[in-house]
Amino acid sequence: MYFIGVDIGGTGVQAGIVNESGNILFRKECTTNVNSGFESVMDDINTLVRELIKENNLNMDDIKSIGFGVPSFINKSGLVTCVNLGWHEVDFMQALKSRFPDVSVYAENDATVAALGEAKFGSMKDKNIAVMYTLGTGVGGGIIINGKAFTGANGMGSEIGHTVIGENYFNCNCGNNGCLETFCSATAIIKHAQKLIEEGKNSKILELAENNLQNINAKMVFDAYRENDVVALETINRFKSYLAKAMSGMINTLDPDVISIGGGVSRASDIILDGIEDLIRQQILYKKEDFAEIVCANLGADAGIIGAAFLN
Amino acid sequence: MYFIGVDIGGTGVQAGIVNESGNILFRKECTTNVNSGFESVMDDINTLVRELIKENNLNMDDIKSIGFGVPSFINKSGLVTCVNLGWHEVDFMQALKSRFPDVSVYAENDATVAALGEAKFGSMKDKNIAVMYTLGTGVGGGIIINGKAFTGANGMGSEIGHTVIGENYFNCNCGNNGCLETFCSATAIIKHAQKLIEEGKNSKILELAENNLQNINAKMVFDAYRENDVVALETINRFKSYLAKAMSGMINTLDPDVISIGGGVSRASDIILDGIEDLIRQQILYKKEDFAEIVCANLGADAGIIGAAFLN
Repeated sequence: MYFIGVDIGGTGVQAGIVNESGNILFRKECTTNVNSGFESVMDDINTLVRELIKENNLNMDDIKSIGFGVPSFINKSGLVTCVNLGWHEVDFMQALKSRFPDVSVYAENDATVAALGEAKFGSMKDKNIAVMYTLGTGVGGGIIINGKAFTGANGMGSEIGHTVIGENYFNCNCGNNGCLETFCSATAIIKHAQKLIEEGKNSKILELAENNLQNINAKMVFDAYRENDVVALETINRFKSYLAKAMSGMINTLDPDVISIGGGVSRASDIILDGIEDLIRQQILYKKEDFAEIVCANLGADAGIIGAAFLN
Repeated sequence: MYFIGVDIGGTGVQAGIVNESGNILFRKECTTNVNSGFESVMDDINTLVRELIKENNLNMDDIKSIGFGVPSFINKSGLVTCVNLGWHEVDFMQALKSRFPDVSVYAENDATVAALGEAKFGSMKDKNIAVMYTLGTGVGGGIIINGKAFTGANGMGSEIGHTVIGENYFNCNCGNNGCLETFCSATAIIKHAQKLIEEGKNSKILELAENNLQNINAKMVFDAYRENDVVALETINRFKSYLAKAMSGMINTLDPDVISIGGGVSRASDIILDGIEDLIRQQILYKKEDFAEIVCANLGADAGIIGAAFLN
């Protein structure tokens, strides 16, 4: 029996046929034609999945379920609103069911799906209580309990990027002040490095960005950190301090077996993991006890396809 | 079949025989002789439970299980450290098992136990995902998922009073700054009212406290709030604002079906609940969606006995 996972993004859709061991056997992708509208995008996805099955000499009967990751929240009525895709309260679940009437279909937020992939076959494998922080442009997350995505009573859970953990010098896009996303996203790292440079601190980062503040990306800040650049040190240490604060709160609340860090920022895993457990131990309530293993995600972008395939 | 719940406190131990409907049929209590030491307190508890059974013409065979609530954390080895009881890494679970070898015994933190009681038979009855904040001298909490206390991989979970939600003008006893406990406990309310009065603001609270700042308690602040006292208004509004912030983070994370507020502070339930849902809606990520019902606990001190009885 096979599973299909589909990762729907703002620029492309990735689909894969996955076996029971979590290996992606076959892949296919298409462009997300956002401008053509919701129904058209759904038709493209339908074609993509059916071609993927056919090209690999399989039938729909061979497929146990199809799971979808969307860069958005799916409410309990199955409606999706997603600015990046130009969708406003579209009936996503109904659109799936009408196109795939003969197979079980499931869908979840993409960060939650990635966490499920990591919990099934990646950095959080075989752990009962697994939490993933996806640090990218924003901060997403996923809570996996006993191998299932935990999204709460109304499907709104796992949005751990919008946990308030302090006070910050700028507000979050969500309207609050102090969200984890404003301290620990790539955007937050870039913004803080820009701020320090604007305040007059010298930094190699500006050189890496060809003297244009707007060119700064998170990788440049991590690269400069490796060379002991003062702005990078201050920025990354602040980032790690708040990440540890968020994780300490998570440990005091859910006490997971493992916490994984994913998303683009996690490429600097050596810097992020270095000393993070000490920072957490200083802040958790029961300082003498064992706490969650802190790891970085290891499935990369495949977590989206693999996790989607195992939604149920 | 009957269940026994035992609520161990710093001054007294309350035990009750509970039926399957959550009614406490018989009760008995004894003093906690802290100075006599751990083994002696455990002997007193043994005697208390056995007398409770005997006096009501029951046998140990009639008892399905005995559960205990302790004002402390129980680590995964069964060890308890509790300053109030003078216990330092005592082998609590072993002490229970040796005294009650013929019946199943369970134990949990008292705030978690109270949450279980409220989830089984009180303000959070029949809800799958239930979270309780216990607002007293400190802030405790309990997370109940599908009728079971959720305390995580190492039993450290549910300590939601030590979630950092902002920055405060004094540090928490745990060593961190910005814990929920420093904004929303009775202690926090008293401290903030005292601060405003010390800064020179006139207040009826001082009159209620017979002109002695040290006499102020949380009830006085709530009473003065009802009379539109400026210090009380500022203090209680700040308390509610941070409580809503904590609950918003909980909704973004676990999206529970219900959140209950217990502990001594919850006696002013009319003031606390008034407008709290609006404050939460302003801060949660998905502002248009249904979210957890916000209620106040309704079992009072009995939640400790009832919840303990249904630990498993």
